[in-house]
Amino acid sequence: MSKSPGRSKKAGLPPGSPVHVGESKPGKVKITVFDYNETHLKEEVASKVEECAPFKKGNTVTWINIDGIHDVKSIEAMGVEFGLHPLLVEDIVNTDQRPKIEDHGDYLFIVCKMLHPEPKNGRFLWEQVSIIFGSSYVLSFQEHEGDVFDPIRNRLREGKPMSRKSGADYLAYSLLDAIVDNYFILLEELGERIDNLEAKVVSDPTPKALREIQKLKKEMIFLRRSVWPMRDVISGLDRSESNLIHKPTKVYLRDVYDHTIQVIDTIETYRDILSVTMDIYLSSISNRMNEVMKVLTIIATIFIPLTFITGWYGMNFRHMPELESPLGYPIVLAMSLVVAVSMYLYFYKKKWL
Amino acid sequence: MSKSPGRSKKAGLPPGSPVHVGESKPGKVKITVFDYNETHLKEEVASKVEECAPFKKGNTVTWINIDGIHDVKSIEAMGVEFGLHPLLVEDIVNTDQRPKIEDHGDYLFIVCKMLHPEPKNGRFLWEQVSIIFGSSYVLSFQEHEGDVFDPIRNRLREGKPMSRKSGADYLAYSLLDAIVDNYFILLEELGERIDNLEAKVVSDPTPKALREIQKLKKEMIFLRRSVWPMRDVISGLDRSESNLIHKPTKVYLRDVYDHTIQVIDTIETYRDILSVTMDIYLSSISNRMNEVMKVLTIIATIFIPLTFITGWYGMNFRHMPELESPLGYPIVLAMSLVVAVSMYLYFYKKKWL
Amino acid sequence: MSKSPGRSKKAGLPPGSPVHVGESKPGKVKITVFDYNETHLKEEVASKVEECAPFKKGNTVTWINIDGIHDVKSIEAMGVEFGLHPLLVEDIVNTDQRPKIEDHGDYLFIVCKMLHPEPKNGRFLWEQVSIIFGSSYVLSFQEHEGDVFDPIRNRLREGKPMSRKSGADYLAYSLLDAIVDNYFILLEELGERIDNLEAKVVSDPTPKALREIQKLKKEMIFLRRSVWPMRDVISGLDRSESNLIHKPTKVYLRDVYDHTIQVIDTIETYRDILSVTMDIYLSSISNRMNEVMKVLTIIATIFIPLTFITGWYGMNFRHMPELESPLGYPIVLAMSLVVAVSMYLYFYKKKWL
Amino acid sequence: MSKSPGRSKKAGLPPGSPVHVGESKPGKVKITVFDYNETHLKEEVASKVEECAPFKKGNTVTWINIDGIHDVKSIEAMGVEFGLHPLLVEDIVNTDQRPKIEDHGDYLFIVCKMLHPEPKNGRFLWEQVSIIFGSSYVLSFQEHEGDVFDPIRNRLREGKPMSRKSGADYLAYSLLDAIVDNYFILLEELGERIDNLEAKVVSDPTPKALREIQKLKKEMIFLRRSVWPMRDVISGLDRSESNLIHKPTKVYLRDVYDHTIQVIDTIETYRDILSVTMDIYLSSISNRMNEVMKVLTIIATIFIPLTFITGWYGMNFRHMPELESPLGYPIVLAMSLVVAVSMYLYFYKKKWL
Amino acid sequence: MSKSPGRSKKAGLPPGSPVHVGESKPGKVKITVFDYNETHLKEEVASKVEECAPFKKGNTVTWINIDGIHDVKSIEAMGVEFGLHPLLVEDIVNTDQRPKIEDHGDYLFIVCKMLHPEPKNGRFLWEQVSIIFGSSYVLSFQEHEGDVFDPIRNRLREGKPMSRKSGADYLAYSLLDAIVDNYFILLEELGERIDNLEAKVVSDPTPKALREIQKLKKEMIFLRRSVWPMRDVISGLDRSESNLIHKPTKVYLRDVYDHTIQVIDTIETYRDILSVTMDIYLSSISNRMNEVMKVLTIIATIFIPLTFITGWYGMNFRHMPELESPLGYPIVLAMSLVVAVSMYLYFYKKKWL
Repeated sequence: MSKSPGRSKKAGLPPGSPVHVGESKPGKVKITVFDYNETHLKEEVASKVEECAPFKKGNTVTWINIDGIHDVKSIEAMGVEFGLHPLLVEDIVNTDQRPKIEDHGDYLFIVCKMLHPEPKNGRFLWEQVSIIFGSSYVLSFQEHEGDVFDPIRNRLREGKPMSRKSGADYLAYSLLDAIVDNYFILLEELGERIDNLEAKVVSDPTPKALREIQKLKKEMIFLRRSVWPMRDVISGLDRSESNLIHKPTKVYLRDVYDHTIQVIDTIETYRDILSVTMDIYLSSISNRMNEVMKVLTIIATIFIPLTFITGWYGMNFRHMPELESPLGYPIVLAMSLVVAVSMYLYFYKKKWL
Repeated sequence: MSKSPGRSKKAGLPPGSPVHVGESKPGKVKITVFDYNETHLKEEVASKVEECAPFKKGNTVTWINIDGIHDVKSIEAMGVEFGLHPLLVEDIVNTDQRPKIEDHGDYLFIVCKMLHPEPKNGRFLWEQVSIIFGSSYVLSFQEHEGDVFDPIRNRLREGKPMSRKSGADYLAYSLLDAIVDNYFILLEELGERIDNLEAKVVSDPTPKALREIQKLKKEMIFLRRSVWPMRDVISGLDRSESNLIHKPTKVYLRDVYDHTIQVIDTIETYRDILSVTMDIYLSSISNRMNEVMKVLTIIATIFIPLTFITGWYGMNFRHMPELESPLGYPIVLAMSLVVAVSMYLYFYKKKWL
Repeated sequence: MSKSPGRSKKAGLPPGSPVHVGESKPGKVKITVFDYNETHLKEEVASKVEECAPFKKGNTVTWINIDGIHDVKSIEAMGVEFGLHPLLVEDIVNTDQRPKIEDHGDYLFIVCKMLHPEPKNGRFLWEQVSIIFGSSYVLSFQEHEGDVFDPIRNRLREGKPMSRKSGADYLAYSLLDAIVDNYFILLEELGERIDNLEAKVVSDPTPKALREIQKLKKEMIFLRRSVWPMRDVISGLDRSESNLIHKPTKVYLRDVYDHTIQVIDTIETYRDILSVTMDIYLSSISNRMNEVMKVLTIIATIFIPLTFITGWYGMNFRHMPELESPLGYPIVLAMSLVVAVSMYLYFYKKKWL
Repeated sequence: MSKSPGRSKKAGLPPGSPVHVGESKPGKVKITVFDYNETHLKEEVASKVEECAPFKKGNTVTWINIDGIHDVKSIEAMGVEFGLHPLLVEDIVNTDQRPKIEDHGDYLFIVCKMLHPEPKNGRFLWEQVSIIFGSSYVLSFQEHEGDVFDPIRNRLREGKPMSRKSGADYLAYSLLDAIVDNYFILLEELGERIDNLEAKVVSDPTPKALREIQKLKKEMIFLRRSVWPMRDVISGLDRSESNLIHKPTKVYLRDVYDHTIQVIDTIETYRDILSVTMDIYLSSISNRMNEVMKVLTIIATIFIPLTFITGWYGMNFRHMPELESPLGYPIVLAMSLVVAVSMYLYFYKKKWL
Repeated sequence: MSKSPGRSKKAGLPPGSPVHVGESKPGKVKITVFDYNETHLKEEVASKVEECAPFKKGNTVTWINIDGIHDVKSIEAMGVEFGLHPLLVEDIVNTDQRPKIEDHGDYLFIVCKMLHPEPKNGRFLWEQVSIIFGSSYVLSFQEHEGDVFDPIRNRLREGKPMSRKSGADYLAYSLLDAIVDNYFILLEELGERIDNLEAKVVSDPTPKALREIQKLKKEMIFLRRSVWPMRDVISGLDRSESNLIHKPTKVYLRDVYDHTIQVIDTIETYRDILSVTMDIYLSSISNRMNEVMKVLTIIATIFIPLTFITGWYGMNFRHMPELESPLGYPIVLAMSLVVAVSMYLYFYKKKWL
């Protein structure tokens, strides 16, 4: 749960010292380059940061995607290549950032969070995606290979006019849109889990179902924490006066903003529904307990007086006239029935049965 | 409950791809056209989008209402006909929108939610209504046939001067007003259900009543979620600087805004009252349980000592002087009465009876 | 509880159709006119709206008070007479309005709520009061006869200089001030009820007291709902740039604003105190229950082992050496005492006694 | 608790009618005058308001302090003397005001609350202090004699340069500063009570401790209600554009503002801690109850089966082979031990012991 | 807990009287001076405030760090030396300040809180750090020796260009950054404690774990109270129009602002998770209790009827035909088995087993 693993490694270092904070991973980073304009597309896998330099020139849009940010040296080289502020390189490799947007004049810097479901235990995995875009280039940094950007790549390859004609700002928007759209898939999955849970809790309120509610509640806390700042990021982009963002792109940004609001709305709704589900669980459990207590009370209050009667005539006094009388036994029998029936009627009247 | 059914279908598609999200329905869409000015009214059912084109011309107001948005092709054709932004067509067919307003210069785009009660299970059905209006036309898109707009149609047919003289902005306002007025009917119904529920919970707090409270609570979560953004939509219209909205219409918009505030207010009040009802249920249940426990305790604590006494004189010791004595039995009888009566008095003094 | 009784009657009607929403009442409306300036006062009861027309002229302030708004025709006639917007007439007769203020240029329109205690069941009755004032007239509309304006009438009759010299804006302020001052009387009454309730809950936490708490809580929900918007109404008047309100009146408006804030403050405090009272009730009940459980446990745990002992020596085995021994009975007697006393000491040490 | 005692007396009176609302007190008001400048100090006790008039002249600062506001006549005379607005005199004698600030051009009017601990029952007493200051005079009105202003008087008498050189605004600030500083003493006392309470609740959760928590909670509600508006009062002074407040005084006002924020902060913290204390109480009680229930269950479940066994062999059937057998008794003895021990082990394994 | 120890000492003193509020400590304060520019560095431990005076001159940055603020005389001397406002000296020695920022034109004054873990009991120790910086000097005041500034000292000594070239504003930023970075270490530690606690609460919900939750909750209240105002402090610095802060430093301030937001975010997340942990504890306890109650109920309801049967045939009536019959005993045996088994099946069907 500790959301700042290794963050303490950084304490005491001068500002702008890039230290990779996050899960360590072996292997080289993977650098993919898309260089395109309306008529032309070049796709390349670069082995070194330096190989990307030539793409910067010309009137093409250059998209450089880096998978793996543990190789701090490469990220720093990229920073030097594109003239990025040292604090920014530090932010990219520190996977513990809150989604944010920074306007650095020549380029905009966006940090956001991509969500992956973890198949094993139904929790979510967060991946930090940093996007930097200038007038003719987009840099995207991810923690792992495998992302939600493939449809964008395909649209570029297929030469969809909108994708190829538009500038770097449209590409950056497309990346954000892909990330936000991906949230819906996860929310749908979550919605189904909550639906099932609710059905289960009504019919069979086991402690296991309770644990599931509590796990989802915690999941919601983290989900909320990552998605809320996205709202500010995208509205920040929309309201930005940077001339890197062209007017037609703003309509699209408003659209992705609407989607983000909807994601937040859905998360808040799920939280409310989880609260109701929790209430249903608690009242189901309490109903069961009350039933248990009633059974105990009914059994006990019927039999305790009866047992007293039998105890009474089990006493060994020499002089107990009732014991000698031939009517004694039938009278006790009748008396016991009267007690039992009247108790039963009392409980019936009280609606305890 | 999953509020984004099939939304995931859209992930990976380029922005502006209209994909119908919602319940699938067979059959064609139904297109109705009202074309009117102060002196003239033409009403027509069009079979194709293309048939609507001629109405655009002239100094009349044209209201085109489309029932059924599953036929994406028709909606797209309409979009092309009226020069709508592609993202907008996407929003119309995606029934999972949050109420919103967008100013596109030549026309305003409004998304809102119409409520229908579902007779079977007392829940609500939501229907998305999209309204687009320019200087001389209003387009309205609904999911199903059957709406709350019939009174408006009748007023147009009867030639009510206000309705016929005013422009497209007044017609758009009338549609919004009809939708908001409709909420009151549903709120009244809800109010009655809550009243009945409260009466029931006081007299007979069954788990069924609890389930009803929880169902209403969930209903309120969704109701709230759809009505709150309506406030921003209508105040957005009112504050809009678009010259599509004429000054006299603004007075009416403020009126419908007041109604929306009142709807929200009523929803919040109902939520508060449901909380109180929940508290009443819980305290009723807890009162009953306490009563049950008291009965158990009283019966048990009166009879347990008595049973001990009878057990005592049921022992088979050869040498128990009390058993032989002719006073033994009467003394035990008296002792038992004393124990029972003093216990009774103790409980009486403690106000447990 | 349903706060919009008959509101649904309006759905489907064109905007500006005045439909009386509220309790129906037989009889005519009562129209009272005060026409005054510094030197002159005329008081009249008009039988028709038309009779009020002459008072409009001249340099006097005209106050027309209408008791009973079920006669929609009269209200409409008044609307025509004074040139009021049709939506406004609709608002006056619809008693389901939220307090609000509207600036219509030539006149200001204020809706507010007057409170009456209902002697029978200790609930409140709400009455909608609509106030319209222009440069030289004030119209006030009430649901029933009987109001809090008598002191104002008396001051006018007595010719108090402040009342008679000031304009229509001061009169309108006086009406608002009378309404807000009236809240204090009700709040004092409420405060006393809450005080009594708290004392009762500590000494004798009956379910009846709980019902009273819950009733007051509901009362507070409605009270709050009606008073909160008053704040915006009066601050709206104060900040208004309308030249109908003269500067000296603003000082008075700020004073009534302070009073409204104080009313709201008191309501919030009462809500908080009701919560504490509820907590006190719940903990009192829980204390009692714990006491009940302890008594049961003590009685049961002392006697259950003793009963076992007596049962043991009540067994009918032929060969039980203890039964034959003359020491058997005294030893069992001693053993029982030891068990009882040690149990008692155990409970004493555990502080259960 | 009723926070508006006698407030209802005012309903129906014309605005600006000063009616003393608050505890009635016999005796005359006490008027003290300090008249000073850098070189000169005159201190006098006036018996009549009129005696204060001469001090108004000259280039000295005049501080008139009135103890006791029940003598409405004197307050009114003072109002006339200094040309105060009638509503203001009304506010001074109505001790039910919310702290506020009003700028009347020639003078500023401040209402605030002074706190006194009530030694008897540990509650707080509120006293309303009204401060009016113009360019060369400060009027302060208190409900009772005895205040926190003595150190200010001493500083004036001792001729501390800062106190004597500065104008009326600095004196007004000094009064506010004394009032706010006084809150800290009370908060410290409260802090200690909460600390003690928490320690007590952990070791010995009695209902008395609970009552103490609830009393403190209520105290906090009133404390909060009086201190929150002080924040607006002082920030209102600081932001005021009135030329009665000189620039050097603003630094001091910001300081007292910081103190007010700290008081509010501490109150909020105490509220949070009281909530935690309440939780500790509830969980302590619930722990105890669970222990009680466990003891009952363990005793009952061990002895109930054993009692059944003894009952079984206490039956009087003629033909019960076990009763005749010489092994019968030892076997039952062994069986009972086995049952008791296995039950014990079961509970031990379940960690109920 | 009392957060204002000795604060009451100040009540009644004139404003600007520096009184040390906080833990008293013997010994002299320790004064360390760093005087540097790009090429030059002088480090000195001064024994008197006066020794620092020469460093003020020249085009170097002078950092004077004072450990220990109980020696009010020295702090006052420093105040005189650097021309500080008397209220400011008062704030420095009063360790009960809320984090704040004040712009005094020639210098900026910052109060913030440094956190130290207390090894003994896992609580936090707060230390107030006051920072004052002008165009060429930085004064920092701490309560105790030992701080988080050593890495900054080392960077200065090593002559890191960024540290040495930049002005006083960068040094002040570095101090703030060190303080905020230090929070992460403590948050990580807290995160681990919360993780462990949660695991423990699921497996073994002891009252000790509950106490730990409650202790952490209280810790969070204080943590929150100290860190929230830091946000305003740093955003105040960032938005400040003071020309003491150069533009390049602002980028760094935004960075430390982001860190502060992240600290606040993490605290809020921890609070939410503690709430969930509390819920888990409560439901674990309640599950256990329910299990206990079920065992009691099952044992009691099986054996109570059986005990009644045995009691019945333990009665000593002379005329009980069943007792004489040779089939009596086997029939009762069978009957008892039937009762026990049917009870068992009933509980099984009810899922109580």
